Amino acid sequence: MHSIQDLQQIIEKAVKETNYPAEPKELYEPISYLMSLGGKRLRPALVLMATDLFNGDINEALSPALAVELFHNFTLMHDDIMDKAPLRRGKPTVHAKWNEAVAILSGDVMFVKAYQLMIKVKPQILSQVLEIFNQTATGVCEGQQIDMNFENRDQVTIPEYIEMIRLKTAVLLGGALKIGALIGEASETDAQHLYNFGESLGIAFQLQDDILDVYGDPEKFGKQVGGDIISNKKTYLLIKALELAKGEDFIELNHLLSLKTFKSEEKVVAVRAIYDRIGIRELSDIAMQAYADKALKEFELIKVGKGNKEVLMEFAEILVGRQH
Amino acid sequence: MHSIQDLQQIIEKAVKETNYPAEPKELYEPISYLMSLGGKRLRPALVLMATDLFNGDINEALSPALAVELFHNFTLMHDDIMDKAPLRRGKPTVHAKWNEAVAILSGDVMFVKAYQLMIKVKPQILSQVLEIFNQTATGVCEGQQIDMNFENRDQVTIPEYIEMIRLKTAVLLGGALKIGALIGEASETDAQHLYNFGESLGIAFQLQDDILDVYGDPEKFGKQVGGDIISNKKTYLLIKALELAKGEDFIELNHLLSLKTFKSEEKVVAVRAIYDRIGIRELSDIAMQAYADKALKEFELIKVGKGNKEVLMEFAEILVGRQH
Repeated sequence: MHSIQDLQQIIEKAVKETNYPAEPKELYEPISYLMSLGGKRLRPALVLMATDLFNGDINEALSPALAVELFHNFTLMHDDIMDKAPLRRGKPTVHAKWNEAVAILSGDVMFVKAYQLMIKVKPQILSQVLEIFNQTATGVCEGQQIDMNFENRDQVTIPEYIEMIRLKTAVLLGGALKIGALIGEASETDAQHLYNFGESLGIAFQLQDDILDVYGDPEKFGKQVGGDIISNKKTYLLIKALELAKGEDFIELNHLLSLKTFKSEEKVVAVRAIYDRIGIRELSDIAMQAYADKALKEFELIKVGKGNKEVLMEFAEILVGRQH
Repeated sequence: MHSIQDLQQIIEKAVKETNYPAEPKELYEPISYLMSLGGKRLRPALVLMATDLFNGDINEALSPALAVELFHNFTLMHDDIMDKAPLRRGKPTVHAKWNEAVAILSGDVMFVKAYQLMIKVKPQILSQVLEIFNQTATGVCEGQQIDMNFENRDQVTIPEYIEMIRLKTAVLLGGALKIGALIGEASETDAQHLYNFGESLGIAFQLQDDILDVYGDPEKFGKQVGGDIISNKKTYLLIKALELAKGEDFIELNHLLSLKTFKSEEKVVAVRAIYDRIGIRELSDIAMQAYADKALKEFELIKVGKGNKEVLMEFAEILVGRQH
């Protein structure tokens, strides 16, 4: 079994060694740029770990792992245009550094490159791998659209929110794991358990992200703490708070959400105080833990030796227990 | 052999019968909308004709043909954002009718749908078909970027222009034909000849488009005649005219290109008059014919009976001989 550090080094090395054509440079430079900004490389690591879980050859999983990372970064490049985001990992987004047309087209070609890497799997699993990849990609696009639709809606329910993050975030974790499992020649049943594990883990991961956005350590959290509160983002925390807030809290929360001008820090403190009074953090932790437990149960059903499971188990714990 | 009309009916029926999920509607309605605007269905027809050429089963070619048409329309959806085009086939473009975010994301999912249809080919040719499709898609993206770069350049040479239209337009015609050939179980050599035929035919087709934009019959030509002249588009005609214009013509042409405000009709008439004095139409016809002849030579090398070749031959003649 390969350690998490080993696998991450393998991925970083492969990302660095990937070369794109020199011309047209507006098409390929943004790919190298975005890929070089780093990130946790969580999704490609999951592909390799899944292959390793079934004693597969991780060298066979490397191209598909890179494909998954390229796909993820392609969605970030396009999402950043749609969200008009100026920064990504503290650096200018592609559409900000170049322009929108470049970010659209460079993203498109990045998606093609992802397919080019993905089809390097063995012929006997090619069709199945591509079906998973296509389904995953469809889910991610649907999730992004639903997320954008939420911005224009007054009310969003918790089940709707969970379905949105399942599509936008979790299916790709599940898909990455299932592709890795197929490369490792897992049985259909085991591959499906691993997919389910990834999907539930992905939901827990996103809920943890929502919690950290409000309660994270500003020193450790990569993004601006309170960003979701400032932008009225309908996260698990806000939706739950709107459901549970009563009397003065309900009135004040709605007032804070309606402000057109405000001091960011003051709004964050005020909303957080309401969350604290209702116990939103604890409720969110419980929800997050429920999905983490659901993930664990699926993982336990997979028929491989306990020793093989340690690395992926450790990685899952880091993901949902992370402080940043 | 199926007639052109038969094949077009089969495609139109399949396009009409293709259903997309109901939700999220912002993601799927634009796909149905754009696909319903019509167009010549040239590219999917080429897939079917190529399969038919080698006595293959055109039912097997139908999904890949639709994939090619979906891919083509996906590129139109994204190109229209980049080009800030308000109209497509006389109707509002997707980003104009909805918004840019919708056009980006709906295009992305359309691309995924294209792959979903493309992987329905037989397993034994899947890998090869996807390699062609990926290469084609990469070429189309590169061509679009080069085309956009031309807008910001003072000078473009004829070879650079031909390479741009080869990538932006011609590789997809070649790719569609080669995919159809593989489905029809053509030999590698024949499939390559057919690809080369398609690429040269595609260049001739685009040159014909350039010519029609200036000299087409306004009644028959779908777009505004003179549109390229009005927007200073660096087409074969303009590049050649800038190369050959001398004295007064050279000065006047450059003056016309530099005008910030002008009456469209007057500019079109004035530029066309210069083209006429230099003989640009004849030179463009010669270039177009040279690529049509090159295409024909490749077509002749394909080892199938003469009867099988008639339909594709007729179609090629329509493409480069068309008045609209």
